Amino acid sequence: MMQMITLASRPDGAPQPENFKLESAEVPTPGAGEVLIKVHTFSLDPYMRGRMSDAKSYAAPVPIGGTMEAGGVGEVLSSKDPGFQPGDMVLGMTGWATHASLPGNTLRKLPDGLRPSLALGVLGMPGFTGWHGLNAIGQPKPGETLVVAAATGPVGSMVGQLAKAAGLRAVGIAGGPDKCKLAQEKFGFDACLDHRDFADPASMRTALAAKVPDGIDIYFENVGGKVLEAVVPLMNPHGRIPLCGTIAWYNDATPGALTLPQLWRSTLVKFLHIQGFIITNHWHQLPEFLKAVAPKIASGEIAYLEDVAQGLEAAPAAFMGLLEGRNTGKQVVQIV
Amino acid sequence: MMQMITLASRPDGAPQPENFKLESAEVPTPGAGEVLIKVHTFSLDPYMRGRMSDAKSYAAPVPIGGTMEAGGVGEVLSSKDPGFQPGDMVLGMTGWATHASLPGNTLRKLPDGLRPSLALGVLGMPGFTGWHGLNAIGQPKPGETLVVAAATGPVGSMVGQLAKAAGLRAVGIAGGPDKCKLAQEKFGFDACLDHRDFADPASMRTALAAKVPDGIDIYFENVGGKVLEAVVPLMNPHGRIPLCGTIAWYNDATPGALTLPQLWRSTLVKFLHIQGFIITNHWHQLPEFLKAVAPKIASGEIAYLEDVAQGLEAAPAAFMGLLEGRNTGKQVVQIV
Repeated sequence: MMQMITLASRPDGAPQPENFKLESAEVPTPGAGEVLIKVHTFSLDPYMRGRMSDAKSYAAPVPIGGTMEAGGVGEVLSSKDPGFQPGDMVLGMTGWATHASLPGNTLRKLPDGLRPSLALGVLGMPGFTGWHGLNAIGQPKPGETLVVAAATGPVGSMVGQLAKAAGLRAVGIAGGPDKCKLAQEKFGFDACLDHRDFADPASMRTALAAKVPDGIDIYFENVGGKVLEAVVPLMNPHGRIPLCGTIAWYNDATPGALTLPQLWRSTLVKFLHIQGFIITNHWHQLPEFLKAVAPKIASGEIAYLEDVAQGLEAAPAAFMGLLEGRNTGKQVVQIV
Repeated sequence: MMQMITLASRPDGAPQPENFKLESAEVPTPGAGEVLIKVHTFSLDPYMRGRMSDAKSYAAPVPIGGTMEAGGVGEVLSSKDPGFQPGDMVLGMTGWATHASLPGNTLRKLPDGLRPSLALGVLGMPGFTGWHGLNAIGQPKPGETLVVAAATGPVGSMVGQLAKAAGLRAVGIAGGPDKCKLAQEKFGFDACLDHRDFADPASMRTALAAKVPDGIDIYFENVGGKVLEAVVPLMNPHGRIPLCGTIAWYNDATPGALTLPQLWRSTLVKFLHIQGFIITNHWHQLPEFLKAVAPKIASGEIAYLEDVAQGLEAAPAAFMGLLEGRNTGKQVVQIV
């Protein structure tokens, strides 16, 4: 038998335990061209909150009763695709499940010797998101200043480390003094603000202003909310805002003090460049990303952190924690 | 003696007659390198509303008591710059005034035979703004759909005509049935909506949706407000928003129904590219613009409309009318 976590109901606000259901089923038999995988580790990411809603988006929602979506890594048990053999380690959209039968042409074989979970984090979608957004949209130049939130997360920590390597000043935002310490000591941020220290965007802006004496040239946007409000008035002319997530508003999109007319005016008078993106539109760049970053992981030049939840049944709580920033580093669920 | 209109006080909301003052002074004597100009026609543009406020912007505000800023064309009366001779027609930042003494290196000589006011409109800053924003940021592709407001204005009419010539569907927004008729008949828009027909963004969106059956790929943003709110939900994935003005919010920046979190979410899930710009950052492209567009003005391929106020003292009322959309076509003030 296999187990999976399905979407029992759509959340209204923050997801609750009753939105998820642990179910069992027969292990599937792979059809023509399919590969049966025993899942080793799967990824939890903020974007999954979007898949739980049926609002129009770039991707279809998970249907009620459907298995929650996730990228995962696992071992091939049997294969009807000649490109894969039992024992191969592969990456694919396994879902929140112990097993998955997937078309071979949607799978990627992992190189020998790679810690499999890295393909979900620093060398997977989150790391790739940070690399692409920073370079293709952010276009960093030495001496500039970058701000990114969730600075110890898999996207923010990649962005900060790449920015430092490119000669920028990097200022992180994180939740709690421990994460701020990590951001500076493990990931090399020049400064880090604990967003929990600030009741409102104005006080955060004042504190942030002191950390960015030359203003902000790149705001890598993965959170929205209070951080965005604090950042916008500090953006420099010709600033860039790569936008890959708005987690602060996923559960509650109540507007803050910064209005759309104000954002629009800042965009105009500062010639801001704002660009939304999702990394799945840029897969063709993956080899370039891996070539640039994989050696730096191997050498330790780029550090990473993983937060591992043990067991499929731990996934809902880990996901709810992720949305509240209770994880430290890339959140994954290990099954074996 | 010369006359000029100065900023008597800063407006709170819509400018009022008492914010302006008609003053007289001695005609200045040009200093070293300066050129004395008798102003023929000057331009009124929405951006001047920004110069009346002291909010931080890309340009310094007009000081209280200072002459209102404007680009103007006029005839050289005397010159202490060897590059200019009496009788030359020139373009420069003359202000709202009958005369101006300006450094020769800030002036541009107009070609013989050019109707001088064109250098303020279709072949000047507004036309250049439309051309640059559409091409450099909008990146139009045949078969796509473009929406632009103030469709009979000097920016919107340029954008619409260039979009049509590039093989796009062009839908205009304008104020009143006469302007909508002009947009279609004179400027070739495929359709035009009268924004006065709609009490709220939702009803405008419904009407607009019927005019853009394939969605919107480029929204050339020069107004903000209700039009922006109607447009955003209709944007296609990978849509572009060149942003050169937000006139609807210049006098009153009360937020509408579309919130910043919603705009941010749309930017993310539709991979929108939003870029604020001001044409003065792109003067190096002026020769390219003139080469592309001037022949099409001469041949009649690109049409234009001017709205001429007579006499310096008519400028404040014409400017207040411009902010309310009472002009039809490029608003200028003719002095002689």
